[in-house]
Parts: sequence; C-alpha cells; structure tokens
Amino acid sequence: MYSFKNDYSEGAHPRLLNALVETNFEQVEGYGEDGFTQKAVELLKQRIGRSDIDIHLLSGGTQTNLTAISAFLRPHEAVISANTGHILVHETGAIEATGHKIISIEVDDGKLNYMHIKSALDSHTDEHMVKPKLVYISNPTEIGSIYYKDELEQISRFCKDNNLYLFMDGARLGSALCSEENTLELSDLGKLVDAFYIGGTKNGALVGEALVICSDPLKEDFRFYMKQKGALLAKGRLLGIQFIELFKDNLYFDLAKHANKMAGLLRDEISNAGFRFLVHSPSNQIFPILPDRLITELEKNYSFHVWSKVDADNSAIRLVTSWATKEEAVSSFIADMKNEILTL
Amino acid sequence: MYSFKNDYSEGAHPRLLNALVETNFEQVEGYGEDGFTQKAVELLKQRIGRSDIDIHLLSGGTQTNLTAISAFLRPHEAVISANTGHILVHETGAIEATGHKIISIEVDDGKLNYMHIKSALDSHTDEHMVKPKLVYISNPTEIGSIYYKDELEQISRFCKDNNLYLFMDGARLGSALCSEENTLELSDLGKLVDAFYIGGTKNGALVGEALVICSDPLKEDFRFYMKQKGALLAKGRLLGIQFIELFKDNLYFDLAKHANKMAGLLRDEISNAGFRFLVHSPSNQIFPILPDRLITELEKNYSFHVWSKVDADNSAIRLVTSWATKEEAVSSFIADMKNEILTL
Amino acid sequence: MYSFKNDYSEGAHPRLLNALVETNFEQVEGYGEDGFTQKAVELLKQRIGRSDIDIHLLSGGTQTNLTAISAFLRPHEAVISANTGHILVHETGAIEATGHKIISIEVDDGKLNYMHIKSALDSHTDEHMVKPKLVYISNPTEIGSIYYKDELEQISRFCKDNNLYLFMDGARLGSALCSEENTLELSDLGKLVDAFYIGGTKNGALVGEALVICSDPLKEDFRFYMKQKGALLAKGRLLGIQFIELFKDNLYFDLAKHANKMAGLLRDEISNAGFRFLVHSPSNQIFPILPDRLITELEKNYSFHVWSKVDADNSAIRLVTSWATKEEAVSSFIADMKNEILTL
Amino acid sequence: MYSFKNDYSEGAHPRLLNALVETNFEQVEGYGEDGFTQKAVELLKQRIGRSDIDIHLLSGGTQTNLTAISAFLRPHEAVISANTGHILVHETGAIEATGHKIISIEVDDGKLNYMHIKSALDSHTDEHMVKPKLVYISNPTEIGSIYYKDELEQISRFCKDNNLYLFMDGARLGSALCSEENTLELSDLGKLVDAFYIGGTKNGALVGEALVICSDPLKEDFRFYMKQKGALLAKGRLLGIQFIELFKDNLYFDLAKHANKMAGLLRDEISNAGFRFLVHSPSNQIFPILPDRLITELEKNYSFHVWSKVDADNSAIRLVTSWATKEEAVSSFIADMKNEILTL
Repeated sequence: MYSFKNDYSEGAHPRLLNALVETNFEQVEGYGEDGFTQKAVELLKQRIGRSDIDIHLLSGGTQTNLTAISAFLRPHEAVISANTGHILVHETGAIEATGHKIISIEVDDGKLNYMHIKSALDSHTDEHMVKPKLVYISNPTEIGSIYYKDELEQISRFCKDNNLYLFMDGARLGSALCSEENTLELSDLGKLVDAFYIGGTKNGALVGEALVICSDPLKEDFRFYMKQKGALLAKGRLLGIQFIELFKDNLYFDLAKHANKMAGLLRDEISNAGFRFLVHSPSNQIFPILPDRLITELEKNYSFHVWSKVDADNSAIRLVTSWATKEEAVSSFIADMKNEILTL
Repeated sequence: MYSFKNDYSEGAHPRLLNALVETNFEQVEGYGEDGFTQKAVELLKQRIGRSDIDIHLLSGGTQTNLTAISAFLRPHEAVISANTGHILVHETGAIEATGHKIISIEVDDGKLNYMHIKSALDSHTDEHMVKPKLVYISNPTEIGSIYYKDELEQISRFCKDNNLYLFMDGARLGSALCSEENTLELSDLGKLVDAFYIGGTKNGALVGEALVICSDPLKEDFRFYMKQKGALLAKGRLLGIQFIELFKDNLYFDLAKHANKMAGLLRDEISNAGFRFLVHSPSNQIFPILPDRLITELEKNYSFHVWSKVDADNSAIRLVTSWATKEEAVSSFIADMKNEILTL
Repeated sequence: MYSFKNDYSEGAHPRLLNALVETNFEQVEGYGEDGFTQKAVELLKQRIGRSDIDIHLLSGGTQTNLTAISAFLRPHEAVISANTGHILVHETGAIEATGHKIISIEVDDGKLNYMHIKSALDSHTDEHMVKPKLVYISNPTEIGSIYYKDELEQISRFCKDNNLYLFMDGARLGSALCSEENTLELSDLGKLVDAFYIGGTKNGALVGEALVICSDPLKEDFRFYMKQKGALLAKGRLLGIQFIELFKDNLYFDLAKHANKMAGLLRDEISNAGFRFLVHSPSNQIFPILPDRLITELEKNYSFHVWSKVDADNSAIRLVTSWATKEEAVSSFIADMKNEILTL
Repeated sequence: MYSFKNDYSEGAHPRLLNALVETNFEQVEGYGEDGFTQKAVELLKQRIGRSDIDIHLLSGGTQTNLTAISAFLRPHEAVISANTGHILVHETGAIEATGHKIISIEVDDGKLNYMHIKSALDSHTDEHMVKPKLVYISNPTEIGSIYYKDELEQISRFCKDNNLYLFMDGARLGSALCSEENTLELSDLGKLVDAFYIGGTKNGALVGEALVICSDPLKEDFRFYMKQKGALLAKGRLLGIQFIELFKDNLYFDLAKHANKMAGLLRDEISNAGFRFLVHSPSNQIFPILPDRLITELEKNYSFHVWSKVDADNSAIRLVTSWATKEEAVSSFIADMKNEILTL
C-alpha cells in the first residue's frame, strides 16, 4: 500500500535530521532567541529580498493562521475567504474561536479575485455588520490552483486602495512557486502581500512554518501573540535548524520541484488515458475524475482521498505528491491504472 | 560559558533523534492518528496503570495548559492558582485569552493546599463573581518544590467534595517523581487528579507533552479543541516517536534522575559552603542565595538567572540542571565557587 | 413624514409607562431579584403552561442571542442558521466574538427545514471541522415568513434525534403567534424548542426580551452568563414591570394583532393594486415590489427601507407596522399610493 | 423596612419618567441615531467643555466597562486595577471573557497611585507576560473614597509618559464630583483621562451610562463594538431622553448632592456616637464599624450589607444613600441607633 493521501506522510528530509543531530548538544537560548533561528531568519530575508520585514517561525498552518489573523485584527473586523479556504472549513473554527467572523465567497477554482472582495465590501456597510479587513488567500489553493502575478497584483492594489490587509496562506507555497505555470517569486510576495507564510511541514520539514510580516503596522509585539497562543516553542532551535537547512541552498525549492514533477507525471498519464480533472491544478495536488470501478481497484494498492461524487459512475479523487514521493510508486500507480482500464 | 539557565538549552536525547531517523520514511497517517502515537499512548497507559484514560500528545506547556483548561471550563468558570503559577504570570495571559479568569492565591513555597482553595470558594459566592472550578497546580512547582502524596490526596479529596477539577501541570513532572523526597507515583496521579501532563520538552524531547485526561466528563471531543487551538500537528509522529522512546523502557525517569542528581551535587556543595536557599526545592531547580560579588564572578563562566534581590549584598540565583547537564560542568562550577569564596 | 421603517420608532405602550410611574418609589432588590421580575416570570410560565422552565429578562435581541448561545455551547460547537439569520449578518459578528462559528444555509424564504440541518451535519464529519450543535431559527423570520406547527415539529424531532439544541429568536414573536396563518401557541414552543425568547422591544416595551429556557442542561448558572455579558440590569424592575403589564392580560397579543392588522391592510391594498411581493410574509413586515418611480413619490411622505433592486424599474421595499402604527397613516399611505399609480 | 442597601432600589427621578411619557409617540430613528440621543450628547459635551470628544450611551456599568476596555486593547494587553476594582471581582470575569487579564494591585483605600502603576510595569517586562496598557480607576471607588485633582493629574501624567490609557469608571461619578472634598470638575476629566463614563443608573436614571471617549485613537468604529456586545439599544431614545433631563439643567448634580447630604447626616451622627469607619469615604457610601448587637437590632427595620467582620464583637456595615433617600428615613435610622446604644 503506497499513500498519495497527503504530503506529510513521511518524516523530514534527511539533511534536516542530520542538522538536528549535528547541532544537538550546542547550548542555545530558548523560545526562538537562539542563533539558529536568527540565521534562518536572515537567510529567508535574503531570499525575499527585504531586510525590513519580520519573520517568525511557528509549528503548523492552523497555528500560524490563528495567531497571525487574531493579532492583525481588531475585534469587529472580519476575514474574507474563498469558500474553499482552509480556515473556513478545516480548522475547527479556529479563527472564530479568536472572535472573528469569516465572510465566505463562493468560487469555482479556489481563487479570489478583486471583484469577489469588492462584493464583500459592498454588502458590509455599517456598524450592524462586521467590518471586512483582511483578505485570506492560499497559494496554491486548497484545490491545487495557483495565483498568477497579474492576479495577485490586482488583488494587492485593490486591498491597498480599500485599506484591507492581504494575507497569504503558504502551507504549500513551495509547490506554487515551483509550478511550471508560476509567474511569482518570493520577492514579489514581499511587495504584494502584507503577510504570508512559507510552509515547511508539507515540504520536507518535521514541523515548521515561516511567517513573514511585511507591513509595519502588523509587526508590533508579535512575539506576545505567539506566546499567548502557545506558538512559542521552548526549543525554537527545532524550527531554526530546519529552515537553515531548507534555505541555505535551494533545498526547499528542489523538494517542491520534485513533488510537482511527480504530480506532473500522474497528471500527464491520467490525462493521456482520457480522463478529465475536477480543477486545473498545476501544483502537487491533482483531482482526476475516474470511474468508481477503477477507483475501487486502485484502492487495493494505493491510499488517497475520494474527493467527491461527480456522477453515478465517476468520482474525483485527490492525489498528493511530496518531496518524498518515489518515482517508482508513481510509475507503478500509472501502470496499474492502465492495466485496470483494460479490464473495465 | 556553560549554561544553567534552563533545561531546554540542548536538543534531544540521542536515542530520540535516532528513532526519528530510523522511522523517517515510514508512511503514516497525519494529525496524531499514526501508529507511533497510538503505541506511545499505550505505553503511557501501562505506566499509569489505567486503560480508561485518554492521552493526547501536544507540543508545549503553554499550548497544553490553554487547550486543556479552555476545553474543561464553561465561560463563567475560573481557575485557582498559586501566585507563582506559570499560567498566571508567564504565559502572556493565554488562559484569559480563552476567556477565563485566574484567581491568584498568595503562597510562599509555590504550593496550594486545600485551605487556599477553600478561601477562593468562600470569597466567590454568587453570580456577580466568577465560579471557581479548576484547581491548577504544578509539580514540581515553578520554584522547584514538590507535592507529597498526603498533600495531593488532601487536595484531591477537597476538590472532589467541592465539585472542582484538579489539573496538574507536569512540565517538569519527571524531576518531581524522581526526587529523593518524592512519595508519588504516576499511578497515583491517574487516581488523584482529573488531568495532568507529562512534560517531554524539559526532559529530553525536542518538543512534546503528554496530556492525560482521567475524568470521563473531560474527555469528550478533545481532539476538536486541539485542532481549534492549533495543537494538532500534521506530523504527529514527531511526538509519538519521541514518547515511545522515552517510555518503552526507563529512559524518561533515567533522564530525570540525572537532572536531579546534578542539582543535588550543586545543592549539597553550595549548602556545605554555608549558603542558604530561597526555597526548599528537591527537584532540578535550586535557588541559592549568594553574595552579589560572588554572583558577578560566576557569571563570567556560567549563565543563569539572577532571581531576586534578597538584601543589600545578596541575591538568589536560579540554577537549572537537565538530562544533558555534564557532571564536569557541575564540578567546575563548584570548584570555581569555592575558589571565589576564598577571594571575597 | 410617517415612518414604516421599523417597529421600534415610538416609545412604549402607555400602560407600561404608567406602571413604571406607579411603582417608581417602591424599594426593591437589584439585578432581577425584585418582586416585579418574579411576578413577570410567573405570568409567563402560566402562559407557556410549564412551571419547570427558567425565564430571564434581558434588554435586547442581540444581547439575548449572544448571551444564550455562548452559554449553551462548548468552544468547538457551532450554530446552524439560515443565510437571512439576524445573528449571521446583522449583529456585527456577536456570536463569533464569543468564539463560535455560524454555518450559513442558503434558503429562499428565511426558513430552515430539517433537510437543511441534515446537510450541515453531513458536511461536518470530524475534528478538523466545527461540530454543529445549535439550530437558530427566527419566528417570524427576518423577512416576515412564519413557521407552522408541523414544520416546527419536524425540526424539533430532527434536532432531538441528532442531539442538537433548537433555539428560536422571537424578537417579533408576538406578530408570528398572532398571524392569521399561525398554527403555533406559546405552549407548543415550551415543548418543541430548547430555548426561545419573547420579544418586548418590538411589541410595545421600551426595552426587554424574555428568554425562556426549557431544557434542563441549558439552565444551570445562567445568571452568571448574564452578568458576564453585561446583561444583568441593576434596575431589573424596568424589565419586570413592563412584562407584567404585557402579560397580566392579553396586552402583548392585542398589540401584535394590531400590528398585523395594519400590515394586512397594506398587504391587501397593495395586492389589489396589482403588485407582487418579494416573499410571502403573513406578519408585520411586508416586502411589496413597486415601480421605482412610485417609490420615489411615496418617499416624500413616508419613510421605509428600499430592500432590494428587483429589475431595471422595480424594487422591493420593506414596510413594518407595529403596536403604535396609526390606522390613519396606513389609510393615507394607501390613498397616496393609489393616486400616484394613476399618474405613473 | 427601609433599605440603605444600594442606590438603585427605586425607579427613576420623576422628571425623567415625565420626559419619557411626553415624548413617547414621537417617531425617531433606532439604535442611538435619534435626535434625543444627539441632543443629550451635545449637552454633555458642553458640560465637559470639549466638542472633540465622542460620547455613547450604554445601559449599565458592566456593559460599559467590557465594551470599552475590549475595544481599546489589543489581545495581549492587560488592565491594571486596584484589588477592589469592580471589574476585578464583581463582574463575573467580564473583562477576562473578552480575552484580557486584569493585573490586581493591593491597596488599602480603593485608590491607585502612580507608584502602584509603576510596580505593574516593572514586573511585566517581556513577551512571556501580558503587556499592561490600560489603568482602570473608579471615582468614587468601590469603597467610597474619591480621587483628588492632584492625584489624578499625577496618574494622568504617568500614564501619558508610559503610553498607558487611563480609564475612569464613573458609575457613581456624580457623588464623587459633588463630594464636599472634591477638587475635580467634569472638564478636568475631559483633559486628564482617555475615557470615562458618567453613571446614570445609580443617580436617578432607570438605566443609562454615558461613555466619554477623549482620546482620538480610541474613538474609531466604537459603534461596531457596541453592537457586537449587545450594547446598542433599538430604542436608544430611552437613554437619550433621560440624559437630556439629567443634564439640561443641574438635575444630575442636584441628585448627587442630595445623596451625599444624606450620607453626611449618617456619617456625622454615627461619628458623634463614637463609632469609627472602615475607610474615609466622602461620597454616598459609608462603612461604619458597629457592635454586632447593634447591627442585629438595626436590621429589624433597615436593610443594608454587613461588609466585613472587624473583630469578635464588631463589624463594618455599608450604608448607601441616593437621590431617592428620604431624610425622614435617615433621621429615623439615627434615632433608632441612638436608642439602641442606650440599651446595649
């Protein structure tokens, strides 16, 4: 049984583990005030191309989202999110638990555009309603689509013009930035969004997300929020050491490229076999629509999510690849699929 | 420069790192539903001697405290804590941020007794005041003292009689249970408290606390709270693997014994040198009162916290030992101290 | 200029003011522990036909909704509401500010049915999502429609079967219960819902809503929540005296009947004039669709909300009547409308 | 039985009720956007002597405290309060329920001075602790003492120098400002504090507190917070009409003077009879220390709170007078006391 269920099925890239082992007995300060964390932050600032940004290392996506968003907003301010937004449905009301409403916008492809955001502003007009203040987007989205530079520029301009914060959930940011279709660079993000995070957990780290705060008003006292939300690890070194390893050369991007390449192999062969996809997703998650009988056969040797029923006989499945996905497993999946097709 | 500042200055015990390396490519389920976590939970249940308890692995102390306490209480219910309680002063209002007041009780030695708790009940009598509902104690306390079995039994009985939950913060539980003065066992905790946690981060793990929920009414839906508070790691294996390693034999206790032994060496020699202590602390934190001039000299080669001014010429310092403390460093500290005394 | 904007444009029914004046110098206990409040509660219990219910008097609808719902739910539990629900859009995120998500269900007529509720349950399946726990319905709804007895029985049964609380917002309950189409009685509510409130502010009181808690598990410590949310008036008598006056005879229902009668006059004549309505609303709010040119003319002498654009030339307006609406004003509105039609 | 238990035992001053009756059928806008509220605000601005302040009318003290304080603070910021502060003990954790810690300072006389505030700053030094940001004082305090102008100036200066907000709870502000010892005027408050409120409920209104926001950064979007906390009454006229009546001439101050005069009569005679007081309280609450046997006798005809045991045979009681206190009742109390003394 080989798993394509997600990109966090394995541990960490061996280089990260090695770095943990090698540095293990160095005595350092706690709570992210260690030299490892400082070095990781410096490396990230260089990559992003700005020294006037704040970077904090946290443990996971939900933790990062709730800590950042609740820090950025005043009590009556709300978040605008696509209906597929991770914070909207898959974080157990974490944002609402900090007191803030999420305004949901129906979209087909997981992506917000400025007209969506405008519609939320237009329908929230006085003090009897929440005040929309922060736009939450994920890149790649929760269904694998990505934002292109012109799209992000348009959203960014609209947000600035309307005094909104733009926040990007980058749990799988590596995969978006390394997509063949991608037109964005890390340095663009530093200019276009107010805050974003660079996901480590789903791209080779045991645990770790790097939150980048670009806008000055959002920086103040951020470590207070981290501590208050339980997000300040005593052994912050665990995060710092891993991010050094990911960003001291191109490892982070190499890992994402591998994940994308594996998804690409699957996408191409499934497409060649005549199947369609639920959504155009040029990143490490793909959603092919397959006959239910084929799915049943594939489930014997591979684990993956059956995403949604499409019609009486077909369903969309989700296949996720990662830095750790073995090319042999992909080849084997493709071969098995082709064999099964013949017998259907 | 050798640090006695805390017990989280180094990484993890090498056996834990090895276990992470060895299991690294096994594909497992995410979010704590992996086999490693399940095995760790089983090992802990055996140690505690109860199968009818729930155990969850979280990342750190503040996270565990806020997730558990906010899950256990209804909105108008409050926590009773000693004025030294970690949640009261050193967690940036994490408990209040979840909506709950902490009622502070002045104590000298970091420990609550049932009369303290009774005083809080007696002064909260109607709906214009919060309703005290959960008693928070730390073992060892934040200043190194420990609870003895008869004390804990008395508190436990009072809590049961008064419909209060008893919660033990065990960030350094290993050190308490392995203290030479200790009269409690893990199995006692399973009977005497409603919930407690077994701290890993400060006893050899990179990260990780095992929350044990003993009382049925507190168990329901706990994983919802973990997710909502950002405490459900995608790679839960990170916690499970480490706790297996700590508890598959006596490693957890061996590490705590070492820390205590190192503290004992310091305690004995400092005492022999004629110095007093701020508080009786038979665990891995000690608080000797030293001449300021001696402290200044020691700070040249050792880092530690200067805890409080005691009089014009003397201050209490805090020395913390751990699983990683080197006996040579302790010997060296003692020798340096003795030398300096001669020159004062 | 006569206002049909809402049902809280005037003060209170004169009998209520008289009662306040007559009792003004009686010294009574504060915070709702006065004899007036107790008598009001007794009168309400008799009307509802149950003595084993708890009744609390609060100041306004948003206050009642947020105090009750946050008291009833544990942190991870969510509310299910129609997309027109007052709590969802017109209370500035008051429910989310207490930590709870509202799951919105799209409906046409303001009303939930059990299939809607089932869809919310079916899409919230594990601890990564909130747990739907309370169903919020308004009777009449925010757009004037009402629940019929069989509908409410079906919802009630579904909620019981699925361990959900059913909460009815009765800000305009009088108007629903006195609608010509109504098939529910106050005593039915006492059996079919877990909690509901009887709105005073929009039916003749200066201020005041009577929250009725029918289910035992929701009753405990409720006054603590009221105090904590700022909902316990020092001079609780203000609420008690008014509710005595409303319920010591049929005043509450007489006032609602008057409001409905006035709405009925408007509805009939507007219908006779050939206009349609946005929604079927047999209570004191009606939503006729009128030509924009006619609306412009009517706005010269009457104030009301223009609710929504219907097509290029027509809009829906909202007309609200109340206990204080003068029949002459209604007649005058109708006459003006008819005159204007001739000139269009 | 005559009650000296509190200053909210009766309804409202008759002039306020008359005003409600006379304006009853004027149709006005809801939610505080009515002309009455606007006029009340104008009158208050004139009294305070500043036009560049924002004033909002709310229902009660707890509601005002929680709405204002939670609006003013960011999530990690805390309140500094005397240990007698109403928000600390008698509001059921209302402030904590909005997420903020209250740092308690032990004082003897209910009053904070700048050294107290400094001590809180000095002990909160980094991101592991909350950040003290708002100083909460009550004038008069919860035990009847008052702030003098030089004291308030000193606190105000310290707060400005240390970037702290100064908030004054004025639930009984009239009594403080009309105390014979008072050296403050309303116009001083407009300059010295960032926000304060003028209590109506305890000085002749049925319900109502006027929150005055003096500092610009605290003004923005305040009506959003009011709505979110359930503090925006649909019939805002109820508050506006009463405050017009209280401030269109000197009624507010006349009522407070009467209350103080009645307290003065009691204070003088009790003092003349040889009894001491728990605290120096030159406002409408006094705390004489009486023999328990005398207290028992007085309780037969008068109700009041027994505040605290002082020694084996004596207790402090609390006597509260108000705008409605009858001079005959005071005389009668004094006569009864004197008679009883003879028989002790």
